[in-house]
Amino acid sequence: MMSVEEARATILARFTPLGSELVSLLAASGRVLAQEVVAREDLPPFANSAMDGYAVRAGATDGAAADRRVRLRLSGEVPAGSVYLGTLDAGAAIRILTGAPMPAGADAVIQQELTRSADDWVEVEAEVTPGTNVREAGSDVQQGTVVLRSGIEIGPAEIALLAALGIDPVSVARRPRVALLATGDELVPASDPLLPGQIHDSNAPHLNAAVALAGAEPWPLGIARDRADDLRAHLRAAAGADLILTTGGVSVGTYDLVKDILAEQGNVEFWRVRMRPGKPLAFGMLGNTPLLGLPGNPVSTAVTFELFGRPAIRRMLGCSELLRPEVEVELAGEPLERADRRHFVRARLASRAGQLVATPTGPQGSHIITSLVGASALIVVTEGSGVVRPGDHVPALLLDQAHWEAS
Amino acid sequence: MMSVEEARATILARFTPLGSELVSLLAASGRVLAQEVVAREDLPPFANSAMDGYAVRAGATDGAAADRRVRLRLSGEVPAGSVYLGTLDAGAAIRILTGAPMPAGADAVIQQELTRSADDWVEVEAEVTPGTNVREAGSDVQQGTVVLRSGIEIGPAEIALLAALGIDPVSVARRPRVALLATGDELVPASDPLLPGQIHDSNAPHLNAAVALAGAEPWPLGIARDRADDLRAHLRAAAGADLILTTGGVSVGTYDLVKDILAEQGNVEFWRVRMRPGKPLAFGMLGNTPLLGLPGNPVSTAVTFELFGRPAIRRMLGCSELLRPEVEVELAGEPLERADRRHFVRARLASRAGQLVATPTGPQGSHIITSLVGASALIVVTEGSGVVRPGDHVPALLLDQAHWEAS
Repeated sequence: MMSVEEARATILARFTPLGSELVSLLAASGRVLAQEVVAREDLPPFANSAMDGYAVRAGATDGAAADRRVRLRLSGEVPAGSVYLGTLDAGAAIRILTGAPMPAGADAVIQQELTRSADDWVEVEAEVTPGTNVREAGSDVQQGTVVLRSGIEIGPAEIALLAALGIDPVSVARRPRVALLATGDELVPASDPLLPGQIHDSNAPHLNAAVALAGAEPWPLGIARDRADDLRAHLRAAAGADLILTTGGVSVGTYDLVKDILAEQGNVEFWRVRMRPGKPLAFGMLGNTPLLGLPGNPVSTAVTFELFGRPAIRRMLGCSELLRPEVEVELAGEPLERADRRHFVRARLASRAGQLVATPTGPQGSHIITSLVGASALIVVTEGSGVVRPGDHVPALLLDQAHWEAS
Repeated sequence: MMSVEEARATILARFTPLGSELVSLLAASGRVLAQEVVAREDLPPFANSAMDGYAVRAGATDGAAADRRVRLRLSGEVPAGSVYLGTLDAGAAIRILTGAPMPAGADAVIQQELTRSADDWVEVEAEVTPGTNVREAGSDVQQGTVVLRSGIEIGPAEIALLAALGIDPVSVARRPRVALLATGDELVPASDPLLPGQIHDSNAPHLNAAVALAGAEPWPLGIARDRADDLRAHLRAAAGADLILTTGGVSVGTYDLVKDILAEQGNVEFWRVRMRPGKPLAFGMLGNTPLLGLPGNPVSTAVTFELFGRPAIRRMLGCSELLRPEVEVELAGEPLERADRRHFVRARLASRAGQLVATPTGPQGSHIITSLVGASALIVVTEGSGVVRPGDHVPALLLDQAHWEAS
């Protein structure tokens, strides 16, 4: 049997980044950045006021207090979006609004609440030091700084930063097109009624969502029957995909036609990987298109997609991190048995007094779909390890965060 | 000043769930379930084989071993998707493939690897007990069980379960339409060059992404100038929205026209909330449409949206959890000062030896957009608390998980 690392390395070696395209910032969320972002200007671009109030020379407020107001001459106003064209005199104040550029000669802002004003003067009732309520140019980002690296995922915060730096459109990785094909005579689409012996296909809908969350464009091709002609036709329909994902048909049964067809049409290998759920896996090239054959049990499909499919998609996207974050957690609940194959146990996360605790989601059989629901992590029980007991520390892969128990 | 809880309760009281619509499972990812899901059938729907092998009566294998094979008569075959119509005799075996229904009379499956077969017999080289390699009907979900509750977010695992149960289409919450309006004479779209005194608007692009991640449909209405006619025109354009979010124009400046217009057109209140970043906030009704006025500083916009805008959207979606999970974390890095207002500190998360550790992202000024980048949590420093020192435990809100440091 192959190790998980060996299987993944062999798969990843066949993928490279696909290239980039420009998108508007309004369409950039969830995409992967395909350029290094260097600030072309300071952020903020100019020194500006953090408050509504009066721009002054700090020295002019020396000795001011609530019972000893200092009176300054009001010599103008600078709203946000405008520039004060003159220079502030020592004994003067300029009305300034939040975000407006500091006038030349001013080095501090005294906030409105600490002042009284009339037509042509303002009284200040507190001292300010130079820099008070001033946001210096470049205090967030200095021109020339690398602010974002290629390969990161773009979320709201990155979009805010790109917008502030005037970068719109932005270069993002082209989304890989991932063809999805479920195989099996027993499968019926979720919307159809069951006849005896049939089950609803859950793998194609599952992968359709998981592939999109991984950053790719899913391309569902339906269900192929266990007949050579039907399977061939479905695989032909996948021409043009960047990756074909199949489910089912990779284990030892006589009816596992997938193997024969793949062997006939391409250079696809069949592996046994030292993992649970999972184990049977197919990978290779169908013409120029990589094909990853996942096992048909729903939980096996989900876990092998996580471990092999998602990293392949992320390599095509040029992601700097291909894998899920792996963190140390404390096991709660029942002991986990030692296994010959690496066991990926679906679990819920919680923080108890600051300790990261993972509780398995219940029975872990490869057909128990409910074990996937509510899982925010995969506990990794290394092959050959002893029994893991509640309170023991184990590594866990963090899945998309949806289900945390509150403290 | 108002507490965060008071402000949020007042806001949430004005929102109710919007109603539901049917969508295909292929379009259900990220939507909120608007029906309770009860299993109409057992899952799996029938007892089936977990392996490729032979269905037998377990008793017929008594005494079988590698050196003492037991020979059974091969009396048929049941591939997945078919049903064996007869009943298994005591001394017989039926070829069965993974997922195929157990034939009547059989109570165990012996896996192919432990057998040898020829035309009309099969030899087994190990004993099996009743139930071996059999997945009982209902072993995942029993008919009549409530498997998913209304108000949860639908992800790949929930889609797999819905599909397996034959539920497609599924009833989901209608997505609220959220109008986005940035206000300010200093603002320029990210794609335009800056003139002196101008900055790029980062709030509308930021909210456009954050609103979509919260489950709503963003409706960007551009930038309104600090002129009554322009602001009125933009607000008129928002008619038909389920929520209007504005940024800027809610603090004390003379040019904060937003206040006047809102007071003139609706029943909008202006609050000072005991929080940092944030503080000024507007909320009320513009005709029949709720309006939430967020402060204009980018970090203040982001944090007030998290605390007030996102929960309002999630109430319209009928979500069972309106707020982010709050967990206990250990502070790392610099001490956090005591504050009169509740301080929401952007931080990175890591697990160190199983301990959940949060490190602030750097300078925390309300104009420091880079403090948002890479933040996976908001540390909550309660108003009036003492200095929080590294090693102290504090509550933190978990944001969308993107940035975890590995162990």
